[in-house]
Amino acid sequence: MEAAHFSPPLSSLLSRPHSPLPPRSLRFLSIPLSFLTRLSPRGGARRASQSRRISSSAAGDPIVARPSKELRKERNGSSAAAAEDEKLRALRQLFSRSDVGIDAYIIPSQDAHQSEFIAECFMRRPYITGFTGSAGTAVVTKEKAALWTDGRYFLQAEKQLGRDWILMRSGNHGVPTTTEWLNDVLTPGCRIGIDPFLFSFDAAEELKEAISKKNHELILMKDFNLVDEIWKERPKAPSKPIRVHDIKYAGVDVSSKLSFLRSEIIDNGCTAIVISMLDEVAWLLNMRGNDVPHSPVFYSYLLVDITGATLFVDDNKVTAEVLNHLTNAGVELKPYEAILSEIESLAANGAKLWLDTSSVNAAIVSIFRSACDKFAAKHGNNTRKQVNNESSPALFSNMNKSIRNGGPNGLYKVSPVAIAKAVKNKAEIEGMKGSHLRDAAALSEFWCWMEQAVLENVELTEVEVADKLLEFRKKQEGFIETSFDTISGYGANGAIIHYQATPESCSVVGHKNLFLLDSGGQYIDGTTDITRTVHFGEPSSWQKECFTRVLQGHIALDQAIFPERTPGFVLDVLARSSLWKIGLDYRHGTGHGVGAALNVHEGPQGISFRYGNLTALQKGMIVSNEPGYYEDNSFGIRIENLLLVKEVDLPNSYGGISYLGFEKLTFVPIENNLVDSSLLSPMEIKWLNDYHSQVWEKVSSLLNGAARDWLWRKTRPLPQN
Amino acid sequence: MEAAHFSPPLSSLLSRPHSPLPPRSLRFLSIPLSFLTRLSPRGGARRASQSRRISSSAAGDPIVARPSKELRKERNGSSAAAAEDEKLRALRQLFSRSDVGIDAYIIPSQDAHQSEFIAECFMRRPYITGFTGSAGTAVVTKEKAALWTDGRYFLQAEKQLGRDWILMRSGNHGVPTTTEWLNDVLTPGCRIGIDPFLFSFDAAEELKEAISKKNHELILMKDFNLVDEIWKERPKAPSKPIRVHDIKYAGVDVSSKLSFLRSEIIDNGCTAIVISMLDEVAWLLNMRGNDVPHSPVFYSYLLVDITGATLFVDDNKVTAEVLNHLTNAGVELKPYEAILSEIESLAANGAKLWLDTSSVNAAIVSIFRSACDKFAAKHGNNTRKQVNNESSPALFSNMNKSIRNGGPNGLYKVSPVAIAKAVKNKAEIEGMKGSHLRDAAALSEFWCWMEQAVLENVELTEVEVADKLLEFRKKQEGFIETSFDTISGYGANGAIIHYQATPESCSVVGHKNLFLLDSGGQYIDGTTDITRTVHFGEPSSWQKECFTRVLQGHIALDQAIFPERTPGFVLDVLARSSLWKIGLDYRHGTGHGVGAALNVHEGPQGISFRYGNLTALQKGMIVSNEPGYYEDNSFGIRIENLLLVKEVDLPNSYGGISYLGFEKLTFVPIENNLVDSSLLSPMEIKWLNDYHSQVWEKVSSLLNGAARDWLWRKTRPLPQN
Repeated sequence: MEAAHFSPPLSSLLSRPHSPLPPRSLRFLSIPLSFLTRLSPRGGARRASQSRRISSSAAGDPIVARPSKELRKERNGSSAAAAEDEKLRALRQLFSRSDVGIDAYIIPSQDAHQSEFIAECFMRRPYITGFTGSAGTAVVTKEKAALWTDGRYFLQAEKQLGRDWILMRSGNHGVPTTTEWLNDVLTPGCRIGIDPFLFSFDAAEELKEAISKKNHELILMKDFNLVDEIWKERPKAPSKPIRVHDIKYAGVDVSSKLSFLRSEIIDNGCTAIVISMLDEVAWLLNMRGNDVPHSPVFYSYLLVDITGATLFVDDNKVTAEVLNHLTNAGVELKPYEAILSEIESLAANGAKLWLDTSSVNAAIVSIFRSACDKFAAKHGNNTRKQVNNESSPALFSNMNKSIRNGGPNGLYKVSPVAIAKAVKNKAEIEGMKGSHLRDAAALSEFWCWMEQAVLENVELTEVEVADKLLEFRKKQEGFIETSFDTISGYGANGAIIHYQATPESCSVVGHKNLFLLDSGGQYIDGTTDITRTVHFGEPSSWQKECFTRVLQGHIALDQAIFPERTPGFVLDVLARSSLWKIGLDYRHGTGHGVGAALNVHEGPQGISFRYGNLTALQKGMIVSNEPGYYEDNSFGIRIENLLLVKEVDLPNSYGGISYLGFEKLTFVPIENNLVDSSLLSPMEIKWLNDYHSQVWEKVSSLLNGAARDWLWRKTRPLPQN
Repeated sequence: MEAAHFSPPLSSLLSRPHSPLPPRSLRFLSIPLSFLTRLSPRGGARRASQSRRISSSAAGDPIVARPSKELRKERNGSSAAAAEDEKLRALRQLFSRSDVGIDAYIIPSQDAHQSEFIAECFMRRPYITGFTGSAGTAVVTKEKAALWTDGRYFLQAEKQLGRDWILMRSGNHGVPTTTEWLNDVLTPGCRIGIDPFLFSFDAAEELKEAISKKNHELILMKDFNLVDEIWKERPKAPSKPIRVHDIKYAGVDVSSKLSFLRSEIIDNGCTAIVISMLDEVAWLLNMRGNDVPHSPVFYSYLLVDITGATLFVDDNKVTAEVLNHLTNAGVELKPYEAILSEIESLAANGAKLWLDTSSVNAAIVSIFRSACDKFAAKHGNNTRKQVNNESSPALFSNMNKSIRNGGPNGLYKVSPVAIAKAVKNKAEIEGMKGSHLRDAAALSEFWCWMEQAVLENVELTEVEVADKLLEFRKKQEGFIETSFDTISGYGANGAIIHYQATPESCSVVGHKNLFLLDSGGQYIDGTTDITRTVHFGEPSSWQKECFTRVLQGHIALDQAIFPERTPGFVLDVLARSSLWKIGLDYRHGTGHGVGAALNVHEGPQGISFRYGNLTALQKGMIVSNEPGYYEDNSFGIRIENLLLVKEVDLPNSYGGISYLGFEKLTFVPIENNLVDSSLLSPMEIKWLNDYHSQVWEKVSSLLNGAARDWLWRKTRPLPQN
């Protein structure tokens, strides 16, 4: 859970009252913060500076498909509370070093690529604070040390933080933001340091602006990370080999993808673009890696220009097959650390560089801007300032070509890869469908086994259940690892939206309450994400009413038909209406994008009550449909399928446009014994029965024996009222 | 129709690709443009300058509760096509007058107050062009003359414009905006004149910006309107007396309303505010007028400061009773024309003036800014520039009080009156309910009469039907006039969303197609707006399916329950889902705000697919619920009720917040013979039957004889399937 889950540290770092995403951003939110605002302070991987290098030849094992128990033990073991004071003292000693000279240092949770899941060697905030929750920002001054985290982690942080740390409960009344606090505790005119790899350029600019109110200066220290300097026994950087993602799953070859990107570059009057989001690199190059848990990505940057492309990656990850694949596509290799020097030389050669400043880190953007300034000073022109006007990012593209000639400059605009990646091609859709059926077979075997075990009064903990599910998934062809840490919550634990069971404290799953299980798999050909809620005994009529209303929302969204160009948030109300009728709701979005054999959360589309995301749902996109209801200290309900957006063939087409709808990808029974069918309309009952009939049709041939019998029982129709 | 209907001339004047409201803004749109963007070029009433004065003692009759036939004849009579060339020649002659000196003149449709309905003496654009449609902007250069209007009016404009006019079909591919055209046809560096009363300050600024690309200068000619100068037999300004709106209908006395406003002024660090929207003035002062058709408002400005208030109005409209009423509330009187000089002297006295620049006209804001500059120059400080920074309108309120002392300045922020007026108090709600029941009685009598007439093969035209409806309304207690021009459309005419029948060309209403009737009344205690669609013969099964799907949307919105703080646009999809399922839609919003014995369209709330309006629906607000479907050249369907937002009492309250729902205000039968009940769910059939049972219960006691029998027949329940 800790490192693997999405965290919104911006909310704790900067005050953004009008942000479309409140701090309670959740794993299964309609869309991760990074895709919507891309303002989070992220970044921070390995550096060009020799002093920052980590030998990746001695790299530790990335976490791949290991059972939850093992995983958690390791992580807990690393948070040694006793050594904390020593760490803070060591860190503060560095403040006065001649090449440092700062009064405070901010340590966010991020890596250098806005990743949702990060490698252990980049978990600096957990190391320095001892707090292992996924979301949090640490700030250390010469006298004080404070950690900001959100409501999900208050209890955990209280336990894990040493007494020298102040816990800042983000979102609670009167709790300052990090910059408000810094402006309060420091005397005016201080120097506040950050590792610019760990912040997007936009986030660093916001930070700079906020602390300038007290005349503090933001110091970008790109040559070393202070936590790394004191980190004894720092985990090794990941070094597992990269593999080629077969064209039969990718559907489109690398050359075609690069051609598309080059036409975008040219259309925008640029000569090159830096791609820094790891899933964008993996998608563009039809390659997959093993560097972080749950996402098949590899640490790298990709630079694409009009005629060539360069991948910045550790060459020990590059196999002969990958090298051949890259060579065929005209992609050169350079060391991961070489990105900064390459950016500098691009500027010196007058490049017009496309940089998505909401995702590209401040180290890269700053060095490009400095190099542009140097160029301008040397050649006596002043184009940089004109073009790097953040308030009008489109300025560049509107400029006359003749004006643009002569010097380097930057176009600061959202990366064109996100939407191209979100719209799946035929092969990707086939892969998603196939992997979902195998995943459904694994889940059927699992649920059959579990039902039997609970009936036989076997004492199974939430963690053991998750481990067992992994066993069943592992037996499926093409399975690689979980696509996120399984959420396995019995009774009251199901009401904790971000619940992460630990072997030490987790509950036994019984037959007296609801059991919520949210899990997913990474397969060679696709990525799954499914939630089912069950009751192995007799649910109360209140639980049945809540479940039925969640189901009604799920059905309403599943059945929606809508005109093209409709943003996802328009549909969110359909999933909530039935709950609202009796004064219930859920505090998360309804749907997020999902990658094809890639990240389980991807943008730019989403279905959420947060209407900041205007991305229209498009044919070929995949979204989750996961309404829920959570009763504190009692139980949690969520029903999640993945849906493919498709064009629907209707008798009419008002406005001469296309109408879109959804096709289900997930085929696992929904628990009929939790349905109060008296609340359902005949159409809703028909939906449920049709769905179960499809589940049987598609999945039964993948099953044998008890599991097949279980599927038969679970797919029998409900009688119409 | 022409003058009375809402027009969005901004769309034709300025290019706004990201405007939340496309040009096809419609009468029954969820929210008039002015409330959403308040960027329209509006304004233009009567001026301080002697040369602009119109003797209001000889004023013409305002149009009040006269039959449609009479109304249209008059208006048509006034558009004499023969004299057009003469008008253009006369106008252009003025261009070179020493106190003018311009190369082009823009004539918008507006008055000086962003009014939806304007007095005839301000219909300058219809006068100069001959085109009498409600929406349009005329631009005259020394060589050319062009009129911009939208798709609703292309045919009418073709007929009415003389051959010297170019018709610009706004929204059609390749048609330039007015400023694009001006930038194209004029040589760079020209002087383009406007009457600054007819543009909001924001709109004038946008205009200035757009023409500056070709170095044109915007000339604000506040001392005279060029059209007025050449307008022979210009209609007199309205002069009917103002009346006091009884406290039993207003609910809250003027002193309390002014106290509220003063606390807003003080909280925002200001000393005074200018209110220029006519309904805001009428609401604040509990007064009603007769100056424009359909809205009980009177031309005026209101200036409120910390201790007093001044109403700028022609004193011949002020009766002894009104004078007494104003004196009791501490409101002084000044002539309407004195507003500019008052603004100047306010600035000279160092006022901090709250100006809603999206609605207050450019004449007022400009004179205030000039006066601030003069003050600064005289007193050697430079505060004006700091404060009048349009890009940070909140700057003023954030400034330290000590900085703000010493000189006048402006706070440019939305008027606080709009939301206060939108949330109805108990007396206003009672008045709305009462007037709706009387209106329902009038409609029942009308529909009973009409059904009989059609059955007897009486040839009734659409205009005659509208006139007859007015007769029935006039018999109701407290009826004043129609709240907008009745839309009476038979068959294909019903598909023209803005259809306005004329005696010359209208259809006879028969029993072979659908008949759509959208109408409303102004009563002493409330304002109504209702649409019903009927078929006096045998509707086709396709028409029944369309009607039933519109009805399903109407029911879904009516029955919605939603958490407080939900903006109206979130609910819009509920009204469309049933149509979308078969590829149908409608090109207008679903609901607009309605005033209490005030404007039939008011903001700030609305229910629309245009998600720019983030105003939350609040308890006490009134909205229309009017989904529709329009089949070109065939038929139109719309079902409209008014709804009151109310708090609902639910068994749960997730999040500890209030949940809101709707209470119906409109009680007139919905045509059961157009319902295909096989498409309806049991709950939808129950909704319809419950509604009709309420209609009978509430309205039958107001009816006798045939009308009562008609109501009985029309409220019989549909059988459940």
